Amino acid sequence: MAGLFITLEGGEGAGKTTQCRKIKEYYETLGHEVVLTREPGGTPEAEKIRNLLVQRDGGNWTPMAECLLFFAARQMHVETLIKPAIAYGKVVISDRFTDSTVAYQGYGHGFDLSVIRQIETITLNGFCPDLTFLLDIPVENGLRRSLDQKNKAAGLENTEDRFEKMDKSFHEKLRQGFLTIAKENPDRVTVIDASQSADDVFSQIESALKVTNVI
Amino acid sequence: MAGLFITLEGGEGAGKTTQCRKIKEYYETLGHEVVLTREPGGTPEAEKIRNLLVQRDGGNWTPMAECLLFFAARQMHVETLIKPAIAYGKVVISDRFTDSTVAYQGYGHGFDLSVIRQIETITLNGFCPDLTFLLDIPVENGLRRSLDQKNKAAGLENTEDRFEKMDKSFHEKLRQGFLTIAKENPDRVTVIDASQSADDVFSQIESALKVTNVI
Repeated sequence: MAGLFITLEGGEGAGKTTQCRKIKEYYETLGHEVVLTREPGGTPEAEKIRNLLVQRDGGNWTPMAECLLFFAARQMHVETLIKPAIAYGKVVISDRFTDSTVAYQGYGHGFDLSVIRQIETITLNGFCPDLTFLLDIPVENGLRRSLDQKNKAAGLENTEDRFEKMDKSFHEKLRQGFLTIAKENPDRVTVIDASQSADDVFSQIESALKVTNVI
Repeated sequence: MAGLFITLEGGEGAGKTTQCRKIKEYYETLGHEVVLTREPGGTPEAEKIRNLLVQRDGGNWTPMAECLLFFAARQMHVETLIKPAIAYGKVVISDRFTDSTVAYQGYGHGFDLSVIRQIETITLNGFCPDLTFLLDIPVENGLRRSLDQKNKAAGLENTEDRFEKMDKSFHEKLRQGFLTIAKENPDRVTVIDASQSADDVFSQIESALKVTNVI
């Protein structure tokens, strides 16, 4: 029996990591083997590319090189981890996938969407998730939540100053980009109202999982 | 006045590095500013990708990911070093370029040539060298020369044993691949008999440079 490939998408502070863990528990309770992974990264090789992309001094990449690096990491992730796990019957849950490249590099930073799609076609040959949950949250709420988490992790008080410095127009483009992707892929992508509590957000996801009943 | 972009290509032991230096001296004597560079690499960002590709523990890449990494590095190299230098009127000499990816990954390792060409088209948008010198040498000669250099650098005696372990059939495919590329691009690629002494090899290159008289 083939497994299932689920991705979670969304902007800052949408709560993807928490929901990934909850979906994992849901399927484990049902007796499935679950692999929790993330992008960019997910395999030793792809994590090396992640270091080039997400570290502060990782590199000052051209948009094209950045896009190629994302898809190089993704192709390794798909071929060496995701596809083998699915073939084995496992449920694979990934925190971000291709939609994030389209939303961030394309809609957010303005890199040519048709070029991203061409590279996607060449590298992944049509491979995409069975189900995607887009955790949608108004930009102000998401950024405040994300900043609160970062401040908490760093032991800092929240300051209005730092919030005001965040690039809200970029995050608004990102949000609208994700919503456009959802509209274009209604069979695959379910939009979830992520402004609620983690438990209420998961209730929406659980309902959708029960309806789709893929495995 | 626009500059000039020259690449040197060829297999192991063909003497590319030596000839790159000689071409540099040739143009400097004529009063040109020259940039000597190499692939994969050539810029700080592209050298980070080089580390992933050429180090022993750099990564066990799929052929597709490897190809994307080569072109990510190349696109950075072209946009941030080669094109600006040419626009400034400089002569840019690169030790390897796209032909090496086509020869090694395509003809040598059997990765789909049409996929390599698609990625080339998307990433470089038709950009290619003005002149390419293919330093051609029979496989046995090239491998012996390369092994001698490595042994010398490591302070080792040459042993017939190590020579016999080298994958000659791969290097033969590589050589034929380079020759095919030359046949398909007669206006750009000049095949040079690299089995002669460094000075004699450079005489052939110099004659070709004088005839083309590009700048």
